[in-house]
Amino acid sequence: MKEVIAIVRINMMNQTKQALTDCGVDAFFAHEAQGRGVGFVSPAVLEGAVQGYEEAAALLGEKGKLYPKRMITAVVEDSMVGCVVETIINTNQTGLPGDGKVFVLPLTDAVRVRTGETGVKSIS
Amino acid sequence: MKEVIAIVRINMMNQTKQALTDCGVDAFFAHEAQGRGVGFVSPAVLEGAVQGYEEAAALLGEKGKLYPKRMITAVVEDSMVGCVVETIINTNQTGLPGDGKVFVLPLTDAVRVRTGETGVKSIS
Amino acid sequence: MKEVIAIVRINMMNQTKQALTDCGVDAFFAHEAQGRGVGFVSPAVLEGAVQGYEEAAALLGEKGKLYPKRMITAVVEDSMVGCVVETIINTNQTGLPGDGKVFVLPLTDAVRVRTGETGVKSIS
Repeated sequence: MKEVIAIVRINMMNQTKQALTDCGVDAFFAHEAQGRGVGFVSPAVLEGAVQGYEEAAALLGEKGKLYPKRMITAVVEDSMVGCVVETIINTNQTGLPGDGKVFVLPLTDAVRVRTGETGVKSIS
Repeated sequence: MKEVIAIVRINMMNQTKQALTDCGVDAFFAHEAQGRGVGFVSPAVLEGAVQGYEEAAALLGEKGKLYPKRMITAVVEDSMVGCVVETIINTNQTGLPGDGKVFVLPLTDAVRVRTGETGVKSIS
Repeated sequence: MKEVIAIVRINMMNQTKQALTDCGVDAFFAHEAQGRGVGFVSPAVLEGAVQGYEEAAALLGEKGKLYPKRMITAVVEDSMVGCVVETIINTNQTGLPGDGKVFVLPLTDAVRVRTGETGVKSIS
């Protein structure tokens, strides 16, 4: 089992939820977060800053700013990680900065509180 | 050391906190989350949907809906994981859908900022 | 790669963000949390409680109380974990209870949604 964490745009939350469900992932949880990436800078902005345009320089200067995001966490079987990650990418990829990240973490165990089931049984 | 994440009902937050403290876990943090499970469906609802009852069909249709939950995270020694998981189950198990999940993740290290202590020392 | 989670005081959020950026970590996300530590108790408080001072006893009694915190998560290369943890400690250490914790978790993989890049490429 793996824990898959996706950081996505706020307005992509519903589509991502639906995509995960279509992918066979029925159990997940989500919460609000704020984040930023490494700050992909378009060549046009860089060129603008070099030429002294204030707006371009301002864009480059906002290194510390965090943007509202949604963080979705799903625990899935190892065999489903590939499909889940691909689905999240297909749903969220616009090619623009801010598309988000996906992190995959190892999991030692999972337990369903209602039944006490552990392991893969607890998540299916 | 392990990171234990529990997703519980909102109104079970205080009892779970108390149970963890009784169990010897004094350090943990929590935040709001929204989540859903695989959608355990009672046989009565399924039967109702099969017989064409609209209300039962509606219950089955709400696959994407997320419910408000609390997420509690505690970092504990390996030897305490069993007790902690059992305590969370005993406190939160009603036998009804929505009782929650417990996830156990491996941890590489922990550090207490105040003293710089690492490893088990940092969490006891 | 590792996932580094820092639980810090609310008012240290901006300094910690800046410190991470200075340290070369440009990508991270944050959210609100509530937490408590093992409850470091000053010898003066203990002594006061022993002597029967109500205020001291009350301080000892607040075991379950959670305090508002900020949780910052960054995914970094293995070689940067030491620097990142040290930076967080240097920025947040006051020597008083509530300075926070740092947890380091193993990571299986990371993906940048915009490009589909995986591994270290996705976080640099």
